[in-house]
Amino acid sequence: MLMTFIGVPLSVIGSLMHWSNIVLFIIYCLTIVALASYMGRATESLAIVAGPRIGGLLNATFGNAVELIISIFSLKAGLVGIVLASLTGSVLGNLLLVAGLSFFIGGLKFKRQSFNVYDARHNSGLLMFAVIIAFVIPEVFSINMNETKTLSLSIGISVILIILYLAALFFKLVTHRGVYQPSTEKVAHEEEEPEWGKGRAIAVLFIATIAVAYISEHLVHTFEYVGETLGWSELFIGVIIVAIVGNAAEHASAIVMAFKNKMDIAVEIAIGSTLQVAMFVLPVLVLVSLFFDTTMPLLFSWQELIAMVSSVLLMVVISNDGESNWFEGLTLLAAYLIMGIGFYLL
Amino acid sequence: MLMTFIGVPLSVIGSLMHWSNIVLFIIYCLTIVALASYMGRATESLAIVAGPRIGGLLNATFGNAVELIISIFSLKAGLVGIVLASLTGSVLGNLLLVAGLSFFIGGLKFKRQSFNVYDARHNSGLLMFAVIIAFVIPEVFSINMNETKTLSLSIGISVILIILYLAALFFKLVTHRGVYQPSTEKVAHEEEEPEWGKGRAIAVLFIATIAVAYISEHLVHTFEYVGETLGWSELFIGVIIVAIVGNAAEHASAIVMAFKNKMDIAVEIAIGSTLQVAMFVLPVLVLVSLFFDTTMPLLFSWQELIAMVSSVLLMVVISNDGESNWFEGLTLLAAYLIMGIGFYLL
Amino acid sequence: MLMTFIGVPLSVIGSLMHWSNIVLFIIYCLTIVALASYMGRATESLAIVAGPRIGGLLNATFGNAVELIISIFSLKAGLVGIVLASLTGSVLGNLLLVAGLSFFIGGLKFKRQSFNVYDARHNSGLLMFAVIIAFVIPEVFSINMNETKTLSLSIGISVILIILYLAALFFKLVTHRGVYQPSTEKVAHEEEEPEWGKGRAIAVLFIATIAVAYISEHLVHTFEYVGETLGWSELFIGVIIVAIVGNAAEHASAIVMAFKNKMDIAVEIAIGSTLQVAMFVLPVLVLVSLFFDTTMPLLFSWQELIAMVSSVLLMVVISNDGESNWFEGLTLLAAYLIMGIGFYLL
Repeated sequence: MLMTFIGVPLSVIGSLMHWSNIVLFIIYCLTIVALASYMGRATESLAIVAGPRIGGLLNATFGNAVELIISIFSLKAGLVGIVLASLTGSVLGNLLLVAGLSFFIGGLKFKRQSFNVYDARHNSGLLMFAVIIAFVIPEVFSINMNETKTLSLSIGISVILIILYLAALFFKLVTHRGVYQPSTEKVAHEEEEPEWGKGRAIAVLFIATIAVAYISEHLVHTFEYVGETLGWSELFIGVIIVAIVGNAAEHASAIVMAFKNKMDIAVEIAIGSTLQVAMFVLPVLVLVSLFFDTTMPLLFSWQELIAMVSSVLLMVVISNDGESNWFEGLTLLAAYLIMGIGFYLL
Repeated sequence: MLMTFIGVPLSVIGSLMHWSNIVLFIIYCLTIVALASYMGRATESLAIVAGPRIGGLLNATFGNAVELIISIFSLKAGLVGIVLASLTGSVLGNLLLVAGLSFFIGGLKFKRQSFNVYDARHNSGLLMFAVIIAFVIPEVFSINMNETKTLSLSIGISVILIILYLAALFFKLVTHRGVYQPSTEKVAHEEEEPEWGKGRAIAVLFIATIAVAYISEHLVHTFEYVGETLGWSELFIGVIIVAIVGNAAEHASAIVMAFKNKMDIAVEIAIGSTLQVAMFVLPVLVLVSLFFDTTMPLLFSWQELIAMVSSVLLMVVISNDGESNWFEGLTLLAAYLIMGIGFYLL
Repeated sequence: MLMTFIGVPLSVIGSLMHWSNIVLFIIYCLTIVALASYMGRATESLAIVAGPRIGGLLNATFGNAVELIISIFSLKAGLVGIVLASLTGSVLGNLLLVAGLSFFIGGLKFKRQSFNVYDARHNSGLLMFAVIIAFVIPEVFSINMNETKTLSLSIGISVILIILYLAALFFKLVTHRGVYQPSTEKVAHEEEEPEWGKGRAIAVLFIATIAVAYISEHLVHTFEYVGETLGWSELFIGVIIVAIVGNAAEHASAIVMAFKNKMDIAVEIAIGSTLQVAMFVLPVLVLVSLFFDTTMPLLFSWQELIAMVSSVLLMVVISNDGESNWFEGLTLLAAYLIMGIGFYLL
């Protein structure tokens, strides 16, 4: 874990001195993963203090703040295709890779793991709404629409997505706080000792987020060279590489939670993060793009859309019983691998 | 509620004296809504006497009789596109708007509302069958078929839909009557006092249905002018406006039931009505169209089909646990709003 | 049941003496059905000894061994389209016809039948993975791919399908054997008396399988003439006729099990057999085709793909509650009938 104290200054020095892109790429990735594990520990400490829901929310927020910042820079540069690809990758990565690894690794230790079935169903409904309704409708309707109307539809849907996302927070944290929570669960969490105090955990989260944001931005610029050197397409880098590195924080903390049998938090990180990308980061970017030269309508490629639709349907069927095991995790990982091969060959 | 006694004669006089179409449009709509609330009260009285299932069935029947009559007149005039649009709108309206409003408004009063989970699953299976199988298959197969074969397939599927719909009634009312019903539920309903007697309720329902049918027919002819004046497309009028006004009866009574925490009846009205349109009204119209000049194959536009498919998938996931709350209602309403914007811009 | 002792020698003599194809077709079909009932009785005897899971596995294996052999011969002859059609038919036949008949006929005798809900959910996840992910992704991604890349993607997905299928067996039979099984169930099975001893049952299964394989191969050659005489298209013969006759064994034994209220085994045969075709027979054939002149990518026609996708979605919704009744069976049969009409007219 000392990697952090070496990696961060090394990243700064390396980027200023223009080292080889492949070397920088490796340094950046390792540093981000190291920082992510710090963020995981800080989030866990906060989660113990704040309860599983707010803890999961914190995780999702600190994972996706990075993405939102990178995407805004990309949009400013007019790279609409890469933004949509990396958001698709984020949805697929959280839904299949993060949840898959959590279920799989947690399942190697525990025979059956269970999580709050009400939260799972609530999340299923939102996943269906965001992907099957809000992403599919503009794709199918835009076939017979001109560009102006497609953009109007995208703006309308983006506003609806953001409002429903805020309503979901209001539902979870205000009107129905604890309504679907077994009372025993909370007690169990309160008994645990947080590793760090509230203040220190927040400080670590804050500093690590800034460091991750700084390094991520530089990392993005190495992708082009790495892609050329290794023969990867832009789509593959966007959907798979950006998503894996960009979601390292969620990966680390979700797996740690699964290994400690706190599946509520692991699922909240994986699916909560997916929902935040789909219902908040993406629509915000659509609206932000109106102030830039290139606007971004809510239009994925058919491959990206179908990949997300089928992933959501798989996840809904797998998570709907509130239980997981290693095989369910393996199924999700296999689905991710198929998507990865598909985007690599595209 | 005195609107009814003013509205009905006013509608008759107005249509005979050829008042301005915008004025007539407003009078017609208000009168139908007023009549619908009467029908709601009459249906509720009958529902208390007859039990929740037959009550729900009555609601669906009296709501859709109007639609069947209007659609037959439209088919006779060769308006196949408008008939399919208004039936799509009826499916979307019942599934998203009626159920959404019931869940939302009921959920504002009660924290968690529950309905018979067996009925919900039975309905889910039928929704999947009707929309995902019976509507999707002719759409995909007709790509490689000529017109004659497409019509043959449509006729075959229509006959199967009607037979399965009758079998579903036989299942619900004869072989499995009360099998999936908790015994306590029935007792609770019997204790309530119906507002009107059986005879009076039936008389009110009968007269109101005729009045609604009469006014609806005239209402349809004002749409063209209203559409031109307000800049609405025919598709938007068919899918959204006809559906909202045409299903006012279901809207009113479903929301009243939800507000009284009788979610079994509210869900039965919303989903039962969807199923009646999809499995009975639509296939009957396909068969009836064979006697007219213009035949109507079971072929929706891709936008209509995908809108129905995604709505059904959302509804199945949301209703499958036999519980509802305000947020689930809001999700359905948000989905309806997205569809509405889409069809408006199309 | 003496049909077997007449049918097998009659089939051999008939094929050697080149009787009329229509006569041979009828003899072959009747003999296979007779043999299938023998295989059903032998499998049932073994199932009582071995428990429901292994019993179901045995059923699926002995039903699909025949298909694998026929398909390899067809591939060698370059008939890629017919192989994909007959595998599609096998998936549809098992999922809709076999399960539909089991639910329907079992439901005529018993009001409500239940099966292991954990197994049903496990199977739902695998069905979603195999059809919605592994079959849909190559179809959508290949639109923008050349032939070489499509074949690479097909090979990758085939290897993943086979590995996940083996992992599923490992999960069911090793790491989670009996984890999701109510303990009472096993006891109930052990008390029953098997009709035949283990040795005799295995011998009957072995001989009957060889006889079925021999006759099936000859049967295939009569299809062309029968199709011409009766006006059936190759697609219809592949999807419907081959599937019905080829899965006669599963049909017979699943229905027998349903009639004895052993729904666990009936569902295991129907869905387990579907999964074996989709996750084992099909990917093995893709890999085997690499050694032949004509390679077979994992690319169905759109009609075949959508038929399978919608069947899987219907089955997941219907089976997810672990209960069945005659109406659910009728719904599946109605879906099969619609597919049948569709492929007949195509």
